[in-house]
Amino acid sequence: MNEEMKWNRSLPNGTKDKLFKEAVQSHQLESLVNHHFASRGYQRIETPLIEFEEVFDGMAQKATSRYRFFDDQGRIVVLRPDMTLPIGRVISTTGVIPPVQLSYSGKVFRVNKGHSGEYNEQLQAGMELIGYDSLKAETECLINGVSVSQKSGVTDFQIELGHAAIFQTILSELQLTDQKKERFKWLLQSKNSPGMQDFLVDYQQHPLYPLISRLPRLFGQIDILEEVEALTDHPKILASITEMKQLIKQISQVYPEQEITVDIGLVQELQYYTGITFKGYADQSSDCFFSGGRYDDLLTEFSVAPLPAVGLVFYLDRMLYIKDRKGELTKPQGIEVLIHYDDDALALAEQVLAKERFARLSLHASLEETIEHARTWQIPRVLHVFEHEMKDISLEGGERDE
Amino acid sequence: MNEEMKWNRSLPNGTKDKLFKEAVQSHQLESLVNHHFASRGYQRIETPLIEFEEVFDGMAQKATSRYRFFDDQGRIVVLRPDMTLPIGRVISTTGVIPPVQLSYSGKVFRVNKGHSGEYNEQLQAGMELIGYDSLKAETECLINGVSVSQKSGVTDFQIELGHAAIFQTILSELQLTDQKKERFKWLLQSKNSPGMQDFLVDYQQHPLYPLISRLPRLFGQIDILEEVEALTDHPKILASITEMKQLIKQISQVYPEQEITVDIGLVQELQYYTGITFKGYADQSSDCFFSGGRYDDLLTEFSVAPLPAVGLVFYLDRMLYIKDRKGELTKPQGIEVLIHYDDDALALAEQVLAKERFARLSLHASLEETIEHARTWQIPRVLHVFEHEMKDISLEGGERDE
Repeated sequence: MNEEMKWNRSLPNGTKDKLFKEAVQSHQLESLVNHHFASRGYQRIETPLIEFEEVFDGMAQKATSRYRFFDDQGRIVVLRPDMTLPIGRVISTTGVIPPVQLSYSGKVFRVNKGHSGEYNEQLQAGMELIGYDSLKAETECLINGVSVSQKSGVTDFQIELGHAAIFQTILSELQLTDQKKERFKWLLQSKNSPGMQDFLVDYQQHPLYPLISRLPRLFGQIDILEEVEALTDHPKILASITEMKQLIKQISQVYPEQEITVDIGLVQELQYYTGITFKGYADQSSDCFFSGGRYDDLLTEFSVAPLPAVGLVFYLDRMLYIKDRKGELTKPQGIEVLIHYDDDALALAEQVLAKERFARLSLHASLEETIEHARTWQIPRVLHVFEHEMKDISLEGGERDE
Repeated sequence: MNEEMKWNRSLPNGTKDKLFKEAVQSHQLESLVNHHFASRGYQRIETPLIEFEEVFDGMAQKATSRYRFFDDQGRIVVLRPDMTLPIGRVISTTGVIPPVQLSYSGKVFRVNKGHSGEYNEQLQAGMELIGYDSLKAETECLINGVSVSQKSGVTDFQIELGHAAIFQTILSELQLTDQKKERFKWLLQSKNSPGMQDFLVDYQQHPLYPLISRLPRLFGQIDILEEVEALTDHPKILASITEMKQLIKQISQVYPEQEITVDIGLVQELQYYTGITFKGYADQSSDCFFSGGRYDDLLTEFSVAPLPAVGLVFYLDRMLYIKDRKGELTKPQGIEVLIHYDDDALALAEQVLAKERFARLSLHASLEETIEHARTWQIPRVLHVFEHEMKDISLEGGERDE
């Protein structure tokens, strides 16, 4: 390490400062989402940023991608990589009795190696519907997905639906070795149709062959759902398709213009999903700005009884990035009036400040410094407040009394 | 460690969950303070929760009381114990040119050993006035201290003023050994007047003796400032007293009823203060809910030129605790209407939800489950929405059509 480097002036990889408009809009967006959930009757919950690592045992995410350290008793703790599992912990240890509709917001942490472009601290806000097995829960998630996006100014986006049970059913029917399973996943993820044909050469008599051989191409418009129904009669897969069709029908009642696509061969990154999954994409970005789905087994681990659950999370930093790229992160209004007060005139200065828009008290001792400051920062007006009167100094023109 | 203990259901020491009203009011208080600062022309800044430890070299706080771990390149990082020093880092590395009025909010982390009653994750919000050497900066801090407290519903509190230069001047004039210095600090902190008399037995001819021998008792009402002026003619100490008097005069112009006390023998816990310090105390609590002061040298380390600075931080968790103890944490309004919709009636149900106050969609599949849910949770009304009409089911009385 170079002795001359000043670490006290650097930031760790994957962290960043948010200045001014970005910091303001970040907090405003978090507040907007929180307020939205409150208005729909959600109960807010906040869990600590530091948790025991065991809370996240249900996650597929590799342990190396977490910030891990020791608490004061030498036990391993992590910065939470997720907010769903801590909520499971709350359900299991407090008097919170399902069914419940919970909302949350805050930071989560993942160590992204090198320059992946993702930040390691991410601001999220989301919802958890715990104890509901009806499709109304998925519907509620997507209604929130669309309405929060619209309220936040992310208007031009598409929803992509998947179904974890389809992928899991196929995997279980094919009975692949672990090695072949990885190859199969990779072929699906890369939408590699010729590779899939080669891979399936020994499976041409399998009842699922017609479906699986088409799988890398089964994404796009929603009429693909009918194509799947023609390709298989497997009851579990047909039930999944029926659920997806029903969900689309429900969303279209409220948001008939909303673009919805499907991906039947979607490989779930988070292995805990058990049912329909959904993601929101804007602006040709490869990262979704919201995601969610049903995970009926995940929270059951924290519970004595089965605990069906559906959730949706908004990646607020990505939403801000989408708005920024479209030039829609508005700059906070600049100061237009600088109020200079004489020492015996503070009470009047406070009254003036409360009345003027986009005004600020000058904290310089002298009027000369205040005027110099206003000139430097292009603040057009200085108000000089005396004990019982004030003088308006327009920096474009001359001085005038009031 | 007991193998049977389920760590995935426990929380690390010094962390806690905030449920429902506490979680809601915590975010609301943060938003209120942020909005207040924005309305006075402050610029918001957000720094990461993870920083290199070197950023905090200027803090007196012991390294053992920090959460320390490694980043992906093996360098030591910490969870920020403070938000002032990261702002110094920002000033030194970005194009942010002082003087500036900055505001911030977020979590800070300190490892409190055992059961000190303090939580390790604390929500703070505050302001930094950087580049101002006038007493108008201290005045601005205290104006904000009082008005934010009042807006937040913390109305009955007192401000305690100190001055770091008085304590530092005395220490430097006495020229104590390190061991004696610690004893002297301890006598002051414990307000031990007889002990101080014994300690000063060799200093009775010292010009500061009349002041120092009274020092453990020089706290309380502001007329103590005149007592100090009668006890010494040391120019630095007299200048400090004059500053304190001037600040009190300024605050009293705007808040004539505000209770202000002074503590001349205050030992600064944070050694970085150089001028006036202030703390807000409510409700006979021994912990202040805001604190701040002038620290003209702290940020200079990050700068090529001297960088005078004054700041104030609100301990939002303590403010919530004060309100809670006074029974002023209002419970969020409960749900009064549960809206059950038939599958083809979602669009109408959404319209009804938007119009009804304190309403929520039921996510149960059947009306029977919805009614059962309403009975269990004492929700007085269920609305059953059909495609083009609805039925109002009052659970106290019978059913009636609409």
